[in-house]
Amino acid sequence: MTSPSRPRAIVLDCDPGHDDAIALLLAHGNPDIDLLAVTTVFGNQTLEKVTRNALSVARIAGITGVPFAAGAGRPLVRHVEHAADIHGESGLDGPVLPDPAFDLDSRHAVELIIDTVMSREPHTVTLVATAALTNLALAVRTEPAIVERVREVVLMGGGYHVGNWSPVAEFNIAIDPEAAHVVFNAAWPVVMVGLDLTHQALATPEVAASIAAVGTGPARFVGELLEFFGSTYKEVQGFDSPPVHDPCAVAYVIDPTIVETVKVPIDIELTGTLTLGMTVADFRAPAPDDCNTWAATRLDRDRFWKLVVDALETIGEGGVIAE
Amino acid sequence: MTSPSRPRAIVLDCDPGHDDAIALLLAHGNPDIDLLAVTTVFGNQTLEKVTRNALSVARIAGITGVPFAAGAGRPLVRHVEHAADIHGESGLDGPVLPDPAFDLDSRHAVELIIDTVMSREPHTVTLVATAALTNLALAVRTEPAIVERVREVVLMGGGYHVGNWSPVAEFNIAIDPEAAHVVFNAAWPVVMVGLDLTHQALATPEVAASIAAVGTGPARFVGELLEFFGSTYKEVQGFDSPPVHDPCAVAYVIDPTIVETVKVPIDIELTGTLTLGMTVADFRAPAPDDCNTWAATRLDRDRFWKLVVDALETIGEGGVIAE
Amino acid sequence: MTSPSRPRAIVLDCDPGHDDAIALLLAHGNPDIDLLAVTTVFGNQTLEKVTRNALSVARIAGITGVPFAAGAGRPLVRHVEHAADIHGESGLDGPVLPDPAFDLDSRHAVELIIDTVMSREPHTVTLVATAALTNLALAVRTEPAIVERVREVVLMGGGYHVGNWSPVAEFNIAIDPEAAHVVFNAAWPVVMVGLDLTHQALATPEVAASIAAVGTGPARFVGELLEFFGSTYKEVQGFDSPPVHDPCAVAYVIDPTIVETVKVPIDIELTGTLTLGMTVADFRAPAPDDCNTWAATRLDRDRFWKLVVDALETIGEGGVIAE
Amino acid sequence: MTSPSRPRAIVLDCDPGHDDAIALLLAHGNPDIDLLAVTTVFGNQTLEKVTRNALSVARIAGITGVPFAAGAGRPLVRHVEHAADIHGESGLDGPVLPDPAFDLDSRHAVELIIDTVMSREPHTVTLVATAALTNLALAVRTEPAIVERVREVVLMGGGYHVGNWSPVAEFNIAIDPEAAHVVFNAAWPVVMVGLDLTHQALATPEVAASIAAVGTGPARFVGELLEFFGSTYKEVQGFDSPPVHDPCAVAYVIDPTIVETVKVPIDIELTGTLTLGMTVADFRAPAPDDCNTWAATRLDRDRFWKLVVDALETIGEGGVIAE
Repeated sequence: MTSPSRPRAIVLDCDPGHDDAIALLLAHGNPDIDLLAVTTVFGNQTLEKVTRNALSVARIAGITGVPFAAGAGRPLVRHVEHAADIHGESGLDGPVLPDPAFDLDSRHAVELIIDTVMSREPHTVTLVATAALTNLALAVRTEPAIVERVREVVLMGGGYHVGNWSPVAEFNIAIDPEAAHVVFNAAWPVVMVGLDLTHQALATPEVAASIAAVGTGPARFVGELLEFFGSTYKEVQGFDSPPVHDPCAVAYVIDPTIVETVKVPIDIELTGTLTLGMTVADFRAPAPDDCNTWAATRLDRDRFWKLVVDALETIGEGGVIAE
Repeated sequence: MTSPSRPRAIVLDCDPGHDDAIALLLAHGNPDIDLLAVTTVFGNQTLEKVTRNALSVARIAGITGVPFAAGAGRPLVRHVEHAADIHGESGLDGPVLPDPAFDLDSRHAVELIIDTVMSREPHTVTLVATAALTNLALAVRTEPAIVERVREVVLMGGGYHVGNWSPVAEFNIAIDPEAAHVVFNAAWPVVMVGLDLTHQALATPEVAASIAAVGTGPARFVGELLEFFGSTYKEVQGFDSPPVHDPCAVAYVIDPTIVETVKVPIDIELTGTLTLGMTVADFRAPAPDDCNTWAATRLDRDRFWKLVVDALETIGEGGVIAE
Repeated sequence: MTSPSRPRAIVLDCDPGHDDAIALLLAHGNPDIDLLAVTTVFGNQTLEKVTRNALSVARIAGITGVPFAAGAGRPLVRHVEHAADIHGESGLDGPVLPDPAFDLDSRHAVELIIDTVMSREPHTVTLVATAALTNLALAVRTEPAIVERVREVVLMGGGYHVGNWSPVAEFNIAIDPEAAHVVFNAAWPVVMVGLDLTHQALATPEVAASIAAVGTGPARFVGELLEFFGSTYKEVQGFDSPPVHDPCAVAYVIDPTIVETVKVPIDIELTGTLTLGMTVADFRAPAPDDCNTWAATRLDRDRFWKLVVDALETIGEGGVIAE
Repeated sequence: MTSPSRPRAIVLDCDPGHDDAIALLLAHGNPDIDLLAVTTVFGNQTLEKVTRNALSVARIAGITGVPFAAGAGRPLVRHVEHAADIHGESGLDGPVLPDPAFDLDSRHAVELIIDTVMSREPHTVTLVATAALTNLALAVRTEPAIVERVREVVLMGGGYHVGNWSPVAEFNIAIDPEAAHVVFNAAWPVVMVGLDLTHQALATPEVAASIAAVGTGPARFVGELLEFFGSTYKEVQGFDSPPVHDPCAVAYVIDPTIVETVKVPIDIELTGTLTLGMTVADFRAPAPDDCNTWAATRLDRDRFWKLVVDALETIGEGGVIAE
């Protein structure tokens, strides 16, 4: 059963990326999400690789009729950094990827984001970002009118007490801190689904088993993703089970009771030597009235993973790739 | 007589602004310049004001058939700063401004810049920027292919030994240092016509007299600009005669023997407390082969002002505004 | 019963300050502490005020034969900041303070610290700092030999997940971050007793009652300190009961089972716009072997407050001030 | 003929270093200088090496009865950097150095500076620094009373339009920018004899010839210094003749008509990525009345070198080292 404002119309801006792929499957398979467009940005790997990965995942999921567009290949100001240590050379190592079944939209991601937001009713489009915020920042600076037209921005990135790319900064924010600064300081609602939250979304063996039990091609694909992702996360960051970050942002859009948040001022550190790209949250006092940022705090693990499994059930064999 | 590569095709990105207005008149009136497009950006005043000013100057100059487009209303990352102390409330205080005679192009400045560069032969379009570099930076990050397609970027801004907005930073760079960082670090030729050069372009009483002698409406308009600009420059910065910065960049494009340059590595300071937005030039050794930045050093004053006067002669009564 | 290395010889560097005063009483009254010297530094109030306060507290406590010396009146590099909002105009508002009963040592605090450390057996002197680290930094830079001669540095300051002077920085560190950088980067053991720990040391009404029950002049003095301190902490930071920071550092020296610590690399952010003075702890992996910094994590509240009450019992009427 | 305030009493804080050695000879040999003390600091080489070099130069010069003391071995905050590329492994490569003829004073350089300043009449002692400003900064922070007691601080370092250690920063300032910040921001008169000035003090072949013509042991020593120094300066920085920086600061004290200065606000950049340690001078307007910093602008070359030659004549055979 969906409320009058359901399903939620979203644009998914991503850099697949293992957890991005799962976020895409969740967005496609969940009935409360209306996936309007998918845009890509450099990050887990080069723009070229993550864009091709996005199209391959679309085929696996059986996504059709949704425009996919490529965006920024590098950060606003800094030099490019990728996360090959976690996501492998392809950005989606592990499974064999099918060739894309359709072409990219002819528009640039920034143009597609602007067109989508400006052509829909005000306050109906949610921007879900699971990567560097370069595309969103370019869109805001090119067409500031999107700021008050968007419903909200829900992003996987940052963390108020946890870092991974540095002691106190998270990868998606740290690789383009200026873009994050633009997005967090624009006057739209921003929900930060950070590492504090996503480190609760561990793909334990039980989780993997429940996904395997779905028994479909897409579920096997997710299983292979988790296997590779789990091995690199164990090696690089010492996790027993990998945190599956990006679908948490989609889960918040589906049901905010699964991803609890707290209103708190958040800003991005741009000049720190040790803290560059930190999402600095001020918990010293209750958030003032004009605060437009929220931080995700607590995940309902069981219901979160049930969303993922349910989406895979809904997707079924997806695009039916012959193996 | 023009060489085979003459006239030079340029896009003028500006924020009129008294000296921007004169730059626009020079670009329009000089036979060696082919003005392809004019784009505007916040700076001397708000985007709205400088854009209207650009259209008013177009009418005065009699410019027709050239697309004008508005661009960024604020810097990439920082808060907006304007220069009302120098250019007044309108951004072009002094003369009475006529209403625009034509409408803006429907495209965003960034789109117009990209379209213009990508639709012309490679290495034929020069981007002349006399304002904050926000539009150029957004264009580079949205369509990186322009970098190797542009002929060169000639910009009024910065300075290697002089500042105005701070002890060592110049206004156009300091108000969007991140954009400047993008432009100076892109792999296209960048010619910095900075304060070291433009403080040689003083509109002395002799200069004002020679302009007045042209005797046309546009020349009177320039006279009124110089009068206002001269009074604020005297009051705010203590100049006896005002430095007329922006036309120097156009003059370089017309004839680089009028604006001498030296090849020197230049980069933008982004984190300095006292030096934010400084154009740091490294004169300690000869520039390396892969250096793609030049700094303007010496102005041939007489020939520079003759270019301006000649352009006004060519323009004649321009758009013929009834007074 | 004390171990062979008990009592612990300490120099207490402080800026009384309500909680500094209690730290001084604890150090004096506890049999496992041998208070070698007391040095003062600007912070909660001016150097002059906190130095006089230290002498007044010495009289209340009945401390004799211990040299007290004044040190730095301002930070290494930055401008002075004080905490009058918390500690009042005198730095020790609330109780009536007696006149000092003895004079300051003729030496500078830095000289006294160096003399004390260099004249005692190696690895026997612990430096306990409950204020800005300016004196310690000056001592290290003037006589680097103290670094390997000191037993350890135990300091109240910083925090790995909590700030008070800014969202992520604590007062003692933030008011002289360069000094903190020197102290944390010297090759001596540094135990950071930060806000994460001291926010567990709340002076609840029960605590106040057990102190009042001691029934002596010094206990009444502490009661008056807590009353004033509690009111400003409630007003300024919203605490129901005030956190009594500084004695926690002394408690760690007395018994590290009362203040649990974890070995973790900690460094000081010196250039951050939002994070200046943050004590950046890297919890992403186990601390490397050469790590020489520890962070306090968990306080045994009951045993901590018992230490304070026991010290007051031991002190009895202290210097016996007629009222 | 000396004025009533002649000779000038100075403490020379240095890191010999080729040009430091010449500064020391000039200070000793000139009748208008009363050399009260010599202190050393890390810089051109390690503290140990430059201290030994200072004592060796003292023997060559025949200096006796002047206390020499060693100071800081590293900067206030940063890591140590040396200039072995210019000054060689010993810090004074080239000549054979004699063993010292006397021992160091037992005091630390900081203590010696403070004692000297505080024990003399107010406003009679000039601090001449030709190295990193670490000792002076430690002295100011340990005994702030020296600030208003000192006559002035004359330092070789910085530059308003020239850098050497980076595009816009000079070595002595850049290796301890925080110390420089302390010294430039203290309320004593500071005369910056920077690269703008010292690059006018080139030891041309004519200069070398006039020094050789003195014909003494110390003059030969200077000749050997210039030979080595000249070769590294040519190789590393492309100078045909080496700039002899440090004696310029002494020359200013001897006769300010030889080293012209201008009053201008100067501050030190502490956070710049490209500009760290820059001495930022604000020439945009006349210096305000409370400005206490001066920059050296123009050197009277002939009279400068005559001072050096005259000092060597006065010194004669100095300490008479048998070769």
